[in-house]
Amino acid sequence: MESDIAAADRRYILTLGCPDETGIVARIAGFLADAGAWITEAAYHSDADSNWFFTRQAVRADSVAGSIDELRARFATMAADQFHPNTEWRLTDSGTPKRVVVLVSRESHCLIDLLGRAERGEFPGEIAAVIGNHVSLGELTERFGVPFHLVPFDDPQVSRSAAFDRVAAIVDAHEPDAVVLARFMQILPPHLCEQWSRRAINIHHSFLPSFVGARPYHQAFARGVKLIGATCHYVTAELDAGPIIEQDVIRVDHSDHVADMVRQGRDIETMVLARGVRWHLEDRVLVHGGKTVVFD
Amino acid sequence: MESDIAAADRRYILTLGCPDETGIVARIAGFLADAGAWITEAAYHSDADSNWFFTRQAVRADSVAGSIDELRARFATMAADQFHPNTEWRLTDSGTPKRVVVLVSRESHCLIDLLGRAERGEFPGEIAAVIGNHVSLGELTERFGVPFHLVPFDDPQVSRSAAFDRVAAIVDAHEPDAVVLARFMQILPPHLCEQWSRRAINIHHSFLPSFVGARPYHQAFARGVKLIGATCHYVTAELDAGPIIEQDVIRVDHSDHVADMVRQGRDIETMVLARGVRWHLEDRVLVHGGKTVVFD
Amino acid sequence: MESDIAAADRRYILTLGCPDETGIVARIAGFLADAGAWITEAAYHSDADSNWFFTRQAVRADSVAGSIDELRARFATMAADQFHPNTEWRLTDSGTPKRVVVLVSRESHCLIDLLGRAERGEFPGEIAAVIGNHVSLGELTERFGVPFHLVPFDDPQVSRSAAFDRVAAIVDAHEPDAVVLARFMQILPPHLCEQWSRRAINIHHSFLPSFVGARPYHQAFARGVKLIGATCHYVTAELDAGPIIEQDVIRVDHSDHVADMVRQGRDIETMVLARGVRWHLEDRVLVHGGKTVVFD
Amino acid sequence: MESDIAAADRRYILTLGCPDETGIVARIAGFLADAGAWITEAAYHSDADSNWFFTRQAVRADSVAGSIDELRARFATMAADQFHPNTEWRLTDSGTPKRVVVLVSRESHCLIDLLGRAERGEFPGEIAAVIGNHVSLGELTERFGVPFHLVPFDDPQVSRSAAFDRVAAIVDAHEPDAVVLARFMQILPPHLCEQWSRRAINIHHSFLPSFVGARPYHQAFARGVKLIGATCHYVTAELDAGPIIEQDVIRVDHSDHVADMVRQGRDIETMVLARGVRWHLEDRVLVHGGKTVVFD
Repeated sequence: MESDIAAADRRYILTLGCPDETGIVARIAGFLADAGAWITEAAYHSDADSNWFFTRQAVRADSVAGSIDELRARFATMAADQFHPNTEWRLTDSGTPKRVVVLVSRESHCLIDLLGRAERGEFPGEIAAVIGNHVSLGELTERFGVPFHLVPFDDPQVSRSAAFDRVAAIVDAHEPDAVVLARFMQILPPHLCEQWSRRAINIHHSFLPSFVGARPYHQAFARGVKLIGATCHYVTAELDAGPIIEQDVIRVDHSDHVADMVRQGRDIETMVLARGVRWHLEDRVLVHGGKTVVFD
Repeated sequence: MESDIAAADRRYILTLGCPDETGIVARIAGFLADAGAWITEAAYHSDADSNWFFTRQAVRADSVAGSIDELRARFATMAADQFHPNTEWRLTDSGTPKRVVVLVSRESHCLIDLLGRAERGEFPGEIAAVIGNHVSLGELTERFGVPFHLVPFDDPQVSRSAAFDRVAAIVDAHEPDAVVLARFMQILPPHLCEQWSRRAINIHHSFLPSFVGARPYHQAFARGVKLIGATCHYVTAELDAGPIIEQDVIRVDHSDHVADMVRQGRDIETMVLARGVRWHLEDRVLVHGGKTVVFD
Repeated sequence: MESDIAAADRRYILTLGCPDETGIVARIAGFLADAGAWITEAAYHSDADSNWFFTRQAVRADSVAGSIDELRARFATMAADQFHPNTEWRLTDSGTPKRVVVLVSRESHCLIDLLGRAERGEFPGEIAAVIGNHVSLGELTERFGVPFHLVPFDDPQVSRSAAFDRVAAIVDAHEPDAVVLARFMQILPPHLCEQWSRRAINIHHSFLPSFVGARPYHQAFARGVKLIGATCHYVTAELDAGPIIEQDVIRVDHSDHVADMVRQGRDIETMVLARGVRWHLEDRVLVHGGKTVVFD
Repeated sequence: MESDIAAADRRYILTLGCPDETGIVARIAGFLADAGAWITEAAYHSDADSNWFFTRQAVRADSVAGSIDELRARFATMAADQFHPNTEWRLTDSGTPKRVVVLVSRESHCLIDLLGRAERGEFPGEIAAVIGNHVSLGELTERFGVPFHLVPFDDPQVSRSAAFDRVAAIVDAHEPDAVVLARFMQILPPHLCEQWSRRAINIHHSFLPSFVGARPYHQAFARGVKLIGATCHYVTAELDAGPIIEQDVIRVDHSDHVADMVRQGRDIETMVLARGVRWHLEDRVLVHGGKTVVFD
C-alpha cells in the first residue's frame, strides 16, 4: 500500500546502532553521498557509558535512484563488510503507512485523541483495529470507522490466558508496527511482551519509577507530591520497568483531590502517549540496554 | 529586633488548622473585622480526606489597634471558647525578621543562591550562620559577612554523635526559624529531626519518591528517565519521606550523561530550595498528616 | 433541567466583585454561616492596584435550607444594604447544566477535544450546538450526537453581516453560557462582542500579546522564538486584546519548521482552550478592568 | 593559556554553516576520519526555508595527531576546494579558556549567579572583568576576585558617548569571547552592536517579542498575562530584536503584583542568561538570517 504523501515529503529513514568506533559517521555519510541521497535530517549519539553509537538519517526518497530494496541490499553488503556484527539497522520508507492496533478498557481520553490524530493525518499510519476488554468504547471507535473487537477478561467461561490468545490473534492478524496499550488495565503475559518486544507501547499514569502498579494517583495524593506525571514506555515482562520513551508532569497542589488528579492526569497521559506513538511510528526511537534514544 | 520594612508593608499573619466544621470562616472573619483588620491576603482549604480546615490570613499591621501580643491574647481567648481543642494556630509579625541557619558540605550552588537572596532582601529574614562539615565553603560564606562554623564529620577523634552535638549547639544558640540543609549530605539523627520538627528543611536532588537515598542522578541515568527533579521537604526521621513543600523538574534526554544531569540538576535544586525556604519564612506552609498545604 | 450529579457534589457558587473595604469577608462569611452553608471552597483576592475585591465561594447545596432562589433573594437584600452599589455578584447552582455553543471552521483538534470532554462529563454542561463556516466538521460533530449548523461565509449571495445574523440567531436560540470560538477564523462584529460579552471565548494560536492577528506560527518562525504558545481569552471588539483566561507554551527549536509548530501548537491550543472553558463553566473566572481573576 | 581540563575531556569543536547541497556531511565526516578524529558529539541541521546547512562537531583533542593549527590549515585547504565561498566555519579548542566581560547596573541576581558558576567551573572560561554604571555591585564583584570598573552614565561632565568609549576601551582590552549585558539598562550604540556582533549577549526581562523596551513587568501586569518570561539574545542595533538564543517562562496569576513579577522574573532571567552564556561559550550557537541554531 502506498500512501498519498507528496513525493517531496517522502523519506527513506535509516536507523542504526552499533559499538562505537572511529569512522562510522564517515562510512554512513559516504554511502549516502554515493547513493546521491539528499539528507534532510541527521542525528547522532555516542553513549560513552555503554560505548554504543546511534544514528538516524532521513533522506529524500526522490533523491535516490533505484528502489528502497536495492538501497537496502547495498547497505547490507556494505554493513556486512564494514560494521561490527552486533550492528542493528533498519531502512524504512515513510511512504509505507504504519499500522497500529490499540488496546483499551473503559477510559476514552487516550483513544479519542489517537483516533482524532490518525483521522487528521498526524501519524504516518492508521489505526487498523481497537480491542477492548469492555464494551464501553466500541461505539466510539466505530464512529471513527475503525473496527472494534470485544475480548472480555471477566467471563468465567474464558480463562485469562485464553482471552490473551484471542487478543494476540487479532493483533497479529494486522502485523502491526505498534501495539498501543491506551489505559488497557491488563498486564500482558511475558510471552506477548517478548513477541511484541519494542512494538508494545504502554502509557502509565505516573512519573515512573514513582508509583509503579495500581492506583498511582491515589499513591501520589497520599504522598503529597506537588507534580503528577505520566510515562510512555515499551512493555517488558517486568511491570512498568520497560524503556521509557517519554514523560511529562503537571503541577498540582493541596486543593487537588484524587479526582482532580485523575482529571488533570488524563491530559498528561494523552499528550505523552501521543508523542511516544508518533516518535515510534516515525522511527525516532532506538532502544539499547533498557533505555531509549529519541531523535525528536 | 525590628526590621526596616515600610509600615504599609508590615503584616500580621494568622495561620490556623483545625477539624473542619461549619462557621469557622465566619468566626475568624468576624474576629478580624472586630479588630479593624484590613485583610490583604486570605486563603482557605478544606481537606475532605482528613476533614481538616486550613487558613492563612495576612492583615496590615497598621490597621490593627494595639500590639500583636494583645491581638494574640484576644484570639487565644476566642479560640479557646469557639474552636476545637486540636486547633493549631500562630500569629506572627512580618516586621520581626526570621533567623536561618544553613548546613552545607562542599557544593556551593544552593548556599551562594541563599546568601544572594538574603543579601538583596528577598527573604523576610537573615542567614545567622552557616555550618559546614568541610572547610570548602567557609571563605565563600564569610565573603557575605556571615559567620561560618566548621564541624568535621571525618575526624577519627570525634564521633558522629559528638559532631551532631556540636552542630546542634551552634544551631540552637541562634533559635532559628529555619534550619536549611543545603546539600548537607549527612543524615540528621532522629532526636534532631524531632527537635527541629517543621523547621528543618532539606533539598533532595530527585523528584521524590523516585530515587530516595544516595546518588539519585546516577539512579536517574540508569533508569533512563526523561525528566529529572528536586524536592524540598521537611526533615523527618524516615529518610527523604518528610512532608513535601515544593518540587520541580527539568527535561533531559539521551545526550545527558550523569555529569550533565548533575549540572542541570543544580539549577532545579537551587530554585526549589529557594521557593521552599521563602514560603516557610513567610508562614505559607501548613503541615498536617505528613503533607503540606502551601498558600503561595 | 436538573443534572444527575450526586447530591453531595452539588454546589451553590457565589462569585462577587466590589470595591475593597474592611469587613467584606466577615459579612459574606456571616451570611453563609447564618444560612447554615458548608463551605467547600473559598477564594479571595484583593487587587491593590484597582482597589477591587474578588471572591468565589462554593457551598454544599444540601447544607442550605430552602431553594437557591430564596438564598439569592436573601443575599440581594443583604448586599443592597451592606455592599457598595457597584458590586457585581452571581449565585449559581452546579446542578443546573451549562449550555455551550461552539463555532468552528476547518480545524478539528479543539472541537474533537471539547466533544470528548463533554461526552465523558468533564464539563458541568453540554455542547448544545456547533456552527461551522465550512462543511468539513459537520460529520464529526454529528458522530457525537450534537447538531451541526452550516453557515458559509464565502457565499457571494450572502453578505458577511447576514451570515453573522444567522450565526447569532442560532447561538441566541440556545441562550448559551459560553460561545466558544474553537479556531473559528472569523472576526466577530463589535455588536456580537458586546452582546456576548464575558461569554464569548476565543483560542488564539500565539502567546499574546505576541503575534496578534493572522498566521501567528509563521510570525513565530520568522522571529526565531524558542517557545510557542496559545491564549484563551474573552472576545472584545479590539482584536486579540480581550481579558486573558489562560495561556501556555511549548518549547520549539531550530529543527521545527512552520508545519511542526502548527502541529505542536495544536496540542497547546487544545489544552489551553479546554482549561479556559472549564473554568468559565465552573464560574471560576471573574473579569475586572480588562483582566481576569481565575480561582482555579 | 592552557586550561587544566583533563586530556580526555579536551575537545576540538568545528562549527560550520553553508548553502545546503548533497555531500557536505560526507566531506566533513571523511575529513575527520582521515584525521583520525574521534567524534564525541555531532549535530546537523538543514534549514529548508533558507537552504542553509549547519553543523557542530566535537572531537577528542587527543585523538588528532598534530596541533589544532595544523588541523585548521588542512580544513581551510579542503574547504576552499570543496565548499561554497559563503561558507562560515570555526575550529576552536575547549582547552583554551574563553574570556567574558560582564556589564551591569544595580541588579545583582544575574551577576552573582554568573560569578558563582564561573567560580565553580561551570563555564569553559572566566569572567575577566565587570563594568558597572553604578557603584552598587563593585564590592560584590571584588569579593569574587574579579576587577570592577565603574563607568558612570549620569555624570554631567561626561557625555553618554564618552562613557561608552570608556566601556569599549575596557571591554576591548580583554578581547573577550562574550560581552554579557546582565541587566545593564543602557542601550548599546550601533557602532558597538556592530563591533561586538555575535559576541554581545543581552538578557531582556520579557518573553520577546512581547513587551519590548522599558518596564516589561509593568506591561505584563497591565495586560494580565498568565506567564512571564525572559529572553537571552544577541545584541543588534534594533532594540530587543537580535537573534534569540534562549527563552523561558514562569506562571503567574492574579495574586502576583508587579513586585511579585519582578521577584519571580529574576529567577527566569538568571537561568535563561546562564544557559545562553554557556551555550555561546561552548560554541553551540550558530547565527544565520536573524535567527539562531542552538546545538545543546
